[in-house]
Formats: sequence, structure tokens, C-alpha cells
Amino acid sequence: MRLPKPGEIVMLVSADRKRFIFALRDGEQMHTHHGIVPHADVLACGYGGTVVSHTGAAFLVLRPSFEQILLNTQRATQILYPKDIGLILLKLNVVPGALIAECGTGSGALTTALARYVSPGGRVFSYEAREEAQSMAERNLERLGLDEAVTFHAHDIAAGFLETDLDALFLDVKEPWAYLDQALAALAGGGFLGALVPTINQVVALTDAFVGRPLAELDVCEVLLRQFRAVPGRVRPYDRLTAHTGYLIFARKLEPNEPATEPVGQSHGKAARRSSERRETRHGA
Amino acid sequence: MRLPKPGEIVMLVSADRKRFIFALRDGEQMHTHHGIVPHADVLACGYGGTVVSHTGAAFLVLRPSFEQILLNTQRATQILYPKDIGLILLKLNVVPGALIAECGTGSGALTTALARYVSPGGRVFSYEAREEAQSMAERNLERLGLDEAVTFHAHDIAAGFLETDLDALFLDVKEPWAYLDQALAALAGGGFLGALVPTINQVVALTDAFVGRPLAELDVCEVLLRQFRAVPGRVRPYDRLTAHTGYLIFARKLEPNEPATEPVGQSHGKAARRSSERRETRHGA
Amino acid sequence: MRLPKPGEIVMLVSADRKRFIFALRDGEQMHTHHGIVPHADVLACGYGGTVVSHTGAAFLVLRPSFEQILLNTQRATQILYPKDIGLILLKLNVVPGALIAECGTGSGALTTALARYVSPGGRVFSYEAREEAQSMAERNLERLGLDEAVTFHAHDIAAGFLETDLDALFLDVKEPWAYLDQALAALAGGGFLGALVPTINQVVALTDAFVGRPLAELDVCEVLLRQFRAVPGRVRPYDRLTAHTGYLIFARKLEPNEPATEPVGQSHGKAARRSSERRETRHGA
Amino acid sequence: MRLPKPGEIVMLVSADRKRFIFALRDGEQMHTHHGIVPHADVLACGYGGTVVSHTGAAFLVLRPSFEQILLNTQRATQILYPKDIGLILLKLNVVPGALIAECGTGSGALTTALARYVSPGGRVFSYEAREEAQSMAERNLERLGLDEAVTFHAHDIAAGFLETDLDALFLDVKEPWAYLDQALAALAGGGFLGALVPTINQVVALTDAFVGRPLAELDVCEVLLRQFRAVPGRVRPYDRLTAHTGYLIFARKLEPNEPATEPVGQSHGKAARRSSERRETRHGA
Repeated sequence: MRLPKPGEIVMLVSADRKRFIFALRDGEQMHTHHGIVPHADVLACGYGGTVVSHTGAAFLVLRPSFEQILLNTQRATQILYPKDIGLILLKLNVVPGALIAECGTGSGALTTALARYVSPGGRVFSYEAREEAQSMAERNLERLGLDEAVTFHAHDIAAGFLETDLDALFLDVKEPWAYLDQALAALAGGGFLGALVPTINQVVALTDAFVGRPLAELDVCEVLLRQFRAVPGRVRPYDRLTAHTGYLIFARKLEPNEPATEPVGQSHGKAARRSSERRETRHGA
Repeated sequence: MRLPKPGEIVMLVSADRKRFIFALRDGEQMHTHHGIVPHADVLACGYGGTVVSHTGAAFLVLRPSFEQILLNTQRATQILYPKDIGLILLKLNVVPGALIAECGTGSGALTTALARYVSPGGRVFSYEAREEAQSMAERNLERLGLDEAVTFHAHDIAAGFLETDLDALFLDVKEPWAYLDQALAALAGGGFLGALVPTINQVVALTDAFVGRPLAELDVCEVLLRQFRAVPGRVRPYDRLTAHTGYLIFARKLEPNEPATEPVGQSHGKAARRSSERRETRHGA
Repeated sequence: MRLPKPGEIVMLVSADRKRFIFALRDGEQMHTHHGIVPHADVLACGYGGTVVSHTGAAFLVLRPSFEQILLNTQRATQILYPKDIGLILLKLNVVPGALIAECGTGSGALTTALARYVSPGGRVFSYEAREEAQSMAERNLERLGLDEAVTFHAHDIAAGFLETDLDALFLDVKEPWAYLDQALAALAGGGFLGALVPTINQVVALTDAFVGRPLAELDVCEVLLRQFRAVPGRVRPYDRLTAHTGYLIFARKLEPNEPATEPVGQSHGKAARRSSERRETRHGA
Repeated sequence: MRLPKPGEIVMLVSADRKRFIFALRDGEQMHTHHGIVPHADVLACGYGGTVVSHTGAAFLVLRPSFEQILLNTQRATQILYPKDIGLILLKLNVVPGALIAECGTGSGALTTALARYVSPGGRVFSYEAREEAQSMAERNLERLGLDEAVTFHAHDIAAGFLETDLDALFLDVKEPWAYLDQALAALAGGGFLGALVPTINQVVALTDAFVGRPLAELDVCEVLLRQFRAVPGRVRPYDRLTAHTGYLIFARKLEPNEPATEPVGQSHGKAARRSSERRETRHGA
């Protein structure tokens, strides 16, 4: 039997399928709608086993999947969904060691996933214009022990990003087309640019803004997740579902070869050096 | 400008949008439909820049995204698609340090993604009944420098998996319901079970087989990727698309609390020890 | 300006987009959440114009589309949706003059559409085991003036349909596979069989039951309707939507050529005669 | 057994599922990839039965569904698909007696469906700028005996439609926003306007053009048809499918109440008179 350890994030699941996700701390108690569960009882219960609250209600003890952690993100704003995040990881090449910026921070769901998958060795630079908008995301990251991989910037990206030579950059803002030059200045040659926008008007404005800029490999897509009621004998798609989160748009930064016509986005600053050291130990992918 | 390095996987993109993904080796040449490109020229060209073949054709030099690497997997069989793999990573909690089994190996697209994201510290155990069926996947993994994170087993899982206390296990076989007991024996308490099947008859057979077994948190879904022709001014979904790969099914292993009735899947062998050492350094997620 | 007439079905639309669909009768009043509108005011207002309630609220006067009439069907049970009905009309060849049976009647949304599109000259035979289950559908049909094209049968189809030589037959019942022989007996050679079932388990059971029966041209599909928030400048798919109604299954009845082996479903009774007279005046389609 | 009649449209289905749809004419022969079938043999074979070609190949004899007729439309251009046409019928209130214009004619798939469902008593006005573009559609309509319900206009709608007081109007043209005033002038108050456009840029341009015009009840949607390989025991969505035809956009014409400000589209001409006579005998829907 595998036992949870203090500090680990666990999930209790009640008989009515409510989920409670929290970090284990000896001496503390979890208050649920079906009574109190001492953390000590969870620590003594193997993963996959069952604990009982002071009112007699049973709870299944599980390690949450990373998807469940993302969905459980405490949120002030709309979050990015796992269906989108899963594809973003593969499209933006989010691998250990990568240096990635995102704007805005929001509730930190994407920040969390990026931090998880650039570790070890990488870093996430997360931007919001107002510092107070980041406190919830910071708490969410701390709770998961992922805050060390993230630098929060309370900074308006209209004035440019503070890094250069980034591997990837994701824009989750209302008017991403207004920040393309800043994004290009921050990305390394061939760097991955991504954006999420909810309306087709924004897709039109953003793809129009790509014209004439040093961007290639345009890629527009949408991930639809069809979830089923998984009752054996009566399996069927749910009647009502989240039918839309947003359109995903990706592109790559081009770099002219000729030194004479220095394009936007070339840099040999601090991030670049750190980046090239890092490359030595990277896998080929 | 960031320069590719020998050994790195690069991608050349021709004007007609053909992609060539390969590992750079000084002295070698890439043969394309538009002429020959010496690797040396690619090594001297910054990412995001352009090389020219001996016939004068231009190729964009990019680092492939992990999605493009997966789609480029040399294949003998149907591969798992990035849209599915992205969600599997989050649903199966594929994080550094995880121990995960899969059956079958196939062309190795999922093997590649699992190996990438359990590293460093984790391991993938990939099963096929016949050894020769794994050679293509092995070559694909080697080419990407990810083979060290994978143990290939030429072993029929009807006889049981060779590991116990696994964090997760994925079944990409014709009759996954025939191996549920073997999977449960191999998983740790609370471990993640996943499967992909193309037909609804298989979804019915598999969900029926869950009844009466120690499995919880059943989850059936399907990821639909809508891709758009991204021509600015004329953005539209592609007329014809991959409309179906398969249904994804997930569940968690339950563990009875009573020591008297030792359930399947408990183990204190080698994998379990390695696993518990590993846990010490894990992030909370 | 085109004026509504007494007896016509009209639709009032309030500023907050609530719709009121009803038959106009001089002297009556429509009570809404924003005040009372005398029918006389509607009769005096051209289609596309605006009437004002006694509290001063404005309502747009429109003829409802057939889709809006179907969605407005007063319902005791789940209704068939316009997205499905539209395709059913084309798949079952619902044209003027056709003779079509359906079971069950339900709230009568499909009955309404079939009655509308087999007229003039055709007929719908609508089955429910219990008479009282059909009263709501009958009222809905009467209100629309379509009841004359429908024969309601309070009859259990386990005992067989009461017609033969039908052009088409639609099963909207829990276990359609239990009534295939009855359906085949009621259909003309080459007749159209259709069914709607919500779960994949039912799709499996029904398609399995087709094996060995004189049915051809099996056809399984699902209609997904993506609706957009149509606010100019911010057009986007709705966040949450009806994501599933059911799977549609279609087939055609085969007829052995050999007189020696008279198959199920051959008939020269009343329905057949009426049907063949009808054919004389039919369009080729 | 129900026998086909001369003049009827029949469908032969070969063992390899090829379909041949044609009008029966005594004395003629159908040439297929598996031999010749005399029409006389089809006339002597009951619907649902089997005929044999001169090479011994068997063909199932069926009446085609209206969907199959539409898909079989001989085409010079992209056709509108049954999945879209089914919904258009319900959204535009296409019922017997309706007067409906469409532009352009194209290959006539929508023309065919409109003609079928406005009959008896209604009429379709089909526009193309160049006469020769309509000859294929005319032949398709004639073959089905539906040409009498259609008036073809070789006329540029930039100069306005030739009818007024229409019940509905459908625009299947590249720049529908350029013809909104003409469409409004042709529609009756409350009339149904519809359009199909393939790109999101066109959806944006069209919905933008609605602003400030007398249009209400904007409605943007997309019909996705998921088709399954219907092999009992192995039922699954097809791997590759038509994933996009177009976005459907609908609206209703408003009519100002004040006689002083006569809006576009008011008319008391010929079409209006014919229309009001027609109303007398209409069902409530």
C-alpha cells in the first residue's frame, strides 16, 4: 500500500462525487459538506483506500490527476481548460528547460501547467499589468510547490516584455494583435507564438495582423472535448457541455539571415546566454 | 541568433509546406524533393532563418514542436494523435518521476510523449507480444534521445505485467477488457488506468467489464480537433479532416483498507522501492 | 404590409428575447411577463412590426419559423430537436403523399414535422401504448391545424403495427430492437426505417439486431448543431450548449424476389391500395 | 410487392455499395461498372428486391431518399449538403405555398429541396448572373419533375430582385453583405433571410453589415454531421469526413409601423397578391 506524505496534494472524493483537493499537513482538518476528516486519517490511509468523516461519510483517497488540479484552480477569471492546455503543451514545445512567457496570468491554470512541464531547468514569465491580479495565481502555484519555476511581472506588455530569446510566448489577452511586435522582440528566432481568443472577430483581427510580419507556420484550431456519462449499460455523451472555450492560434517567428536587415526580436542578452547553456543537456526533442 | 547544434532535431519547411524532420549530423546531407541541403548549412543558419538547396529552393529552419515530432513518427501502425496525447498527459498525471506502462508499443508516438514527460526520474514500460513489432518504435525513440527512459518488453500481457506499483497504465489494444485484472495487479493503489478504443462496441464492452472490479472515477471522452485553413482573409475549417481517432476511457484503482483481504496489485518489490525514493523529491502535483 | 389573420400562429418577441407563440383569436389577450397584449393589436400590426403591451413594453410580431414552432412544442417528454428532424425528413423521404408510422408519440414534435411535410395527401400513424400519453401531442397538432393528417393509435406495437405497406417508420422507443419484426411487417419493400437512441449501448444492441434481418443500407449518424452568440463584433459559439440528443440509425427493408419464400412485410391490404393510387400523382422524387 | 413505375426515380445499389440514381424509361438500359441492367427488369422488380446485370452482378432496387437525390445532384459547383438543407427548411419555414428566392442557383441542390417542399402552391425564384450557369440545375430539376415549381432568372441581383413580398430569401454568394438592401426590398415584413458562407471572415463581414439595418433575430450556426461506419460489431465514426461546409446565418426583416417612413421592401404588387390568396388555404404553421 502506498501512503500519502505530508505536503502532498491529495483528493478526497465523496459518495456524491464531490472532490476536495488540498495539501496534507499533520494536525489539520478538512471540513466537508459531510463532516470533518483529520489529515492524520488521510496520511494513514493508502492511496485508493477510504477514510470516514466524523459523521460517518466515506471518502475515497486519491492523488489528483494534473487535469483535476487544473480544473480545481481557484479562479477569479475564466481559466484555460485542460483540453486546450494539453494541446498547447505539444504545440509550444513545452519541455524541461524551456523559457516561456505568458500574458495575462489570470487564475494561473496555464501558468501551473507551463511551470510543471518546463521543470526542471526552465522558467515561466507571467505578466499582468496590475500586481494584485496575480496574488491568486501565486497562491495557487505555491500550494502546488510550483512557484519557484515562475517569475511574476506586474508590467504592461504594451511597453515590451522584459525577456528576450524566449522559446515560446502565449497571449491570453483581449487584443493580442496589439502586442505582436512586443512578442516578436521577446522571442528567439523560430520561437513559438500562441494565443487564445473566444470570438471569430478576434481570430480575423489576429490573422490579419500576421500579414507582413515575420511569422510563419500559421495554425488555427479549436479543441472540442466530448464527455460521456460513463454509467455502464447507459453510456452517452452529456446532454449539456462546455461547447466552446476559444480558438487557438499558433505561429513561428522568422529570422532574416542577413545581418544588414536586423529584424525585430534579435537579442543576445541574459536570457539567451542562460538558454544556450541549458541546451547542452537537453534531449533532442 | 540561436544556432542549431549537432545532434539536435531540426525541421526544414519548403515553400510548398512539406516538412523534413531529422537529427543534425555534421558531414551529412538532407535529400528533399527540391534538392539537397548539407547539414553544415543548417548548422550555420539560425533558427527562424532560411537555407537554400543545391537547386536553389529555400527552406525555413525551425525546431519542430513536440506535436510535429509526434506526427512525424515513422509508423507501421495507426498512431495516437497529439490531440489525444495532450489530454492523456494531464489525465494520467504524466509528470517527471512517474512509472508508467503501456501496451502495445505500436509506432511509439505515445511512448515518445510519455518518455518525454516522465523525464527526468521516471520510466516507461512498453509492451508488445512480439519483439520485432518494437524495433521501429525503438529507432524512433533513439533518434530523439528518449530511449533511455523506456524499457521495452516483448511480453504477452495476458501473462501479467512485469512491474507492480505503477503510477499509471495505458491500454491501446483490441480487447482491453481482457487485461483489466493484469492491469489492476500492476497499478499502485489509486493508480491511473487509461485506454483508447476506436469503436463504440469496445466502449460498451470495456465499461461493462468495469462493473464489479475495484475501479472508480470512470471517465469516457473523445477529443475532436477542428483545424482551420489559416489563410488571412479566408480563415475556415478544413473541408475534410481526421474526424475520429478513438474514445478515451479512464479510471482509478481502488484499494480495500483491510490488510486481511490483500487486494490485487499490492507489491513491495523493486519498482515500488524505486518509486518511494523518487517521491521524496517530487513536487506536490 | 402583410397583416396576420385570425387563426394564424404568430410569435411575439420581447426586448429581452422571450418568445410567445400562439394562435390569433379576435377578442382574446396574450398575457406576458411584460404586460398584456390584445390579439386585436397583433391583427392590426403588420408582420415585422411592433406592438406595445398595456405596460408599455414593445414586442416584435413575427410568423414563427417551423423550427421555432417545434422548439415551442409543449412537452411532457424529451422532444426530438429540429437539427435531427431536418435530417430525418430528408433521410426518410418525407414528401407529400407519404404514409409514415412513428412510435412513440411523445410530445409530438416529430409528429408535427411529419404531418407538415407529408401534407397534402399523406398520413402519419402515431403510436403510444397508453391513450392519455397522446393528449398533449393531439392538442399541439390541433393548435397548428395539422391534426387531420395524423391518426393516433393507443396501441402496443409489440402486437404489431396496424398498417402495412408503409413508406417509412420511425422508432423513438427505449428498445427499438424488440420491434424490428413488427416494423418490417409494416413497411413496404424498400421502405425507410429510422430510429433515435441516446446511448451507445442502444446503438450496439440495435445494429447487432439488424444482422440476419432483411435490412440494407445501414446508416448511423449524429447531428451536432453549433450555435453562435450572434452579437456583431463579438460572434462566438455559445459556451454551453445542447451537446447531445441522440444517435440516428437508418436502414431499408429488403424484399426477396422469390414468391416461394414470402418474407415478412408483404401486404396487399388497404394501406397498400391507398398508397398505389397516391403514387400516380407523385413527383418523381 | 410494390413495383416501380415508368418515370419514377429509382436507385440501384451494387454489392460494393455504388449507387445509380436515374429515371425509369421503358426500353432504356442502365450501364454500370458491373454490366448492363435493362430498365424493364427494374420495372418488373419490386422495391426492396434485386435485379441482375448481364454479367451476373446483383443490384438492390430502392427508391432513393431525398437525401440521396440531393447528394446525387450532378454538380458543376460545390453543393449545399443535406445536413444544412434539412435545417434550412425548418429555419426558413419552407412549407407548401411559400414564395422563396435564392441566389445563386449553383448545381441546384438547394433549389431542388426548396421546390420539393414549397409544392404544392409555392414557387422558387432562382438567380444567377449568367444564364449558362443554370442549365445543369435546370436539367437536374426536370429529371425530378420539380422544374415547374421554379422560375430561373439570369439576372444580377446587384440590380435588385424581380419579386417583392417574398416569404424567404437565401443568399449563397461570395459577398452576401453587398446584397442586403436588395434582399430587404424583396422580402415581406417578417420575412426570413438566410445565407451560407464558408469562412469566418465572411461571417464577421455579414454580421457587421446587419448593424443599422432593419433585421432582427440574428442566428448564426453550423451543422456538423458525424457519420459512422455502420458495421455491426464494429460501429465507429468514420476516420475522415466532410468536416466543414459553411456557417449558416439567419435573420428576420423588420417593418417600421409608421406609414410616414415607408421602409425598403414594402410592396403590393403581383407576388404579394398571389401570396395573400395562397394564405387562405394554408395550415396554421
